[in-house]
Amino acid sequence: MTRKLFELVGTDPARPFSPYCWRIRLALAHKGLEAETVPWRFTQKGAIAPYNSEKVPVLLDGDKAVADSFVIANYLEDAYPDRPSLFGGEGGRAAARFLNSFGDMIVIAGIFPMVVADISQRLDGDDYAYFRKSREARFGGKPLEEVAADRDGRVEGFRKTLEPLRLMLRAQPFVGGAAPNYGDYIMFGGFQWARAVSPFKLLAEDDPVYAWRERMLDAHGGLARKSPGFAV
Amino acid sequence: MTRKLFELVGTDPARPFSPYCWRIRLALAHKGLEAETVPWRFTQKGAIAPYNSEKVPVLLDGDKAVADSFVIANYLEDAYPDRPSLFGGEGGRAAARFLNSFGDMIVIAGIFPMVVADISQRLDGDDYAYFRKSREARFGGKPLEEVAADRDGRVEGFRKTLEPLRLMLRAQPFVGGAAPNYGDYIMFGGFQWARAVSPFKLLAEDDPVYAWRERMLDAHGGLARKSPGFAV
Repeated sequence: MTRKLFELVGTDPARPFSPYCWRIRLALAHKGLEAETVPWRFTQKGAIAPYNSEKVPVLLDGDKAVADSFVIANYLEDAYPDRPSLFGGEGGRAAARFLNSFGDMIVIAGIFPMVVADISQRLDGDDYAYFRKSREARFGGKPLEEVAADRDGRVEGFRKTLEPLRLMLRAQPFVGGAAPNYGDYIMFGGFQWARAVSPFKLLAEDDPVYAWRERMLDAHGGLARKSPGFAV
Repeated sequence: MTRKLFELVGTDPARPFSPYCWRIRLALAHKGLEAETVPWRFTQKGAIAPYNSEKVPVLLDGDKAVADSFVIANYLEDAYPDRPSLFGGEGGRAAARFLNSFGDMIVIAGIFPMVVADISQRLDGDDYAYFRKSREARFGGKPLEEVAADRDGRVEGFRKTLEPLRLMLRAQPFVGGAAPNYGDYIMFGGFQWARAVSPFKLLAEDDPVYAWRERMLDAHGGLARKSPGFAV
């Protein structure tokens, strides 16, 4: 069986950076499943249209095509029940919905304006033009460099929104408890995205969230750390 | 076996209001366990000192004494494994740490300044004096009425911090999935606390979080709704 994962890249096909793709890349590692990377760029909508998606990740697993990171995680959990669990039971799966909301709205949306200009630097040609136009529209037409200009002032507020994660990390090393699970991949995806595209320091070195990010970079044989990125 | 739960009250011994005690009152109902209420007031430190706690909830279960809501929830899950699970497995238990951090830092801490003056109105005598003095100290000596004075302006910001909960509620009716579990009791405790002490409207009626709070008020035979409180 051939398993393939469409992963977002820019000019460097070996530098996947989507936070949602990273969630699934780590979920596959958690399950001990191999999957060939299919590098995918913003403007290659046609390549995934047959799978009824306009966004990645898209997973092709034999004759199955699955899109959307949360749907894919659930698919993997159900399709490979004998592999290590991503959720640790039905309560964990239900709670992962909340974790996913927090990861999307607090982690990813919080990081976005701080790294958005750097993302454009990883792109060229049509991708560059598409990204700038669509993302600047989200900020009322503001140039991305202007959006990112106040990031030194903004980062403190972002760090403050991570307090629930920080407080939890005083009691246990991972969202998953003693070892990482999909809850960690949800949160970490955003940080790995930032690391792949931007040298900006999102976390202070004495932050428990920083130490957790280090543990996540080392997880699954250093899968995330081995991927090209900045030293943050 | 006699089971007893020390629950925080003010002038009305039949109006428990601590958010942490409500988490446990609902957890006991979830497990189908009876527990006699022992009304406890802020200044009755001596009554719980034998159980090595200065705060409630404290649960006495036969010859066991357990303090701290999260510790008690874990105790109940382990001591009564054949009753309905509070966490839905080990992944849910691990994720509950994060939910607990969110419930404490976003829900309870967010509500606190808006209802703190109202709490003092539920107290008298030594409790009133203790509460005002200790809580005003937390706000740099500001009178509680002054702390609460800008709540109309503050409430929009509070509602915004609930976005992760709101986004999740678009996908499922409870933190626990199809039915409430301890994740819901964590979040709801803060709202039930506010409802017991304050007429202030924390949520707009068209908010999915409002609808979820209604469902929680009805849970376990309307346990929370039957307890004295304001129509919010």
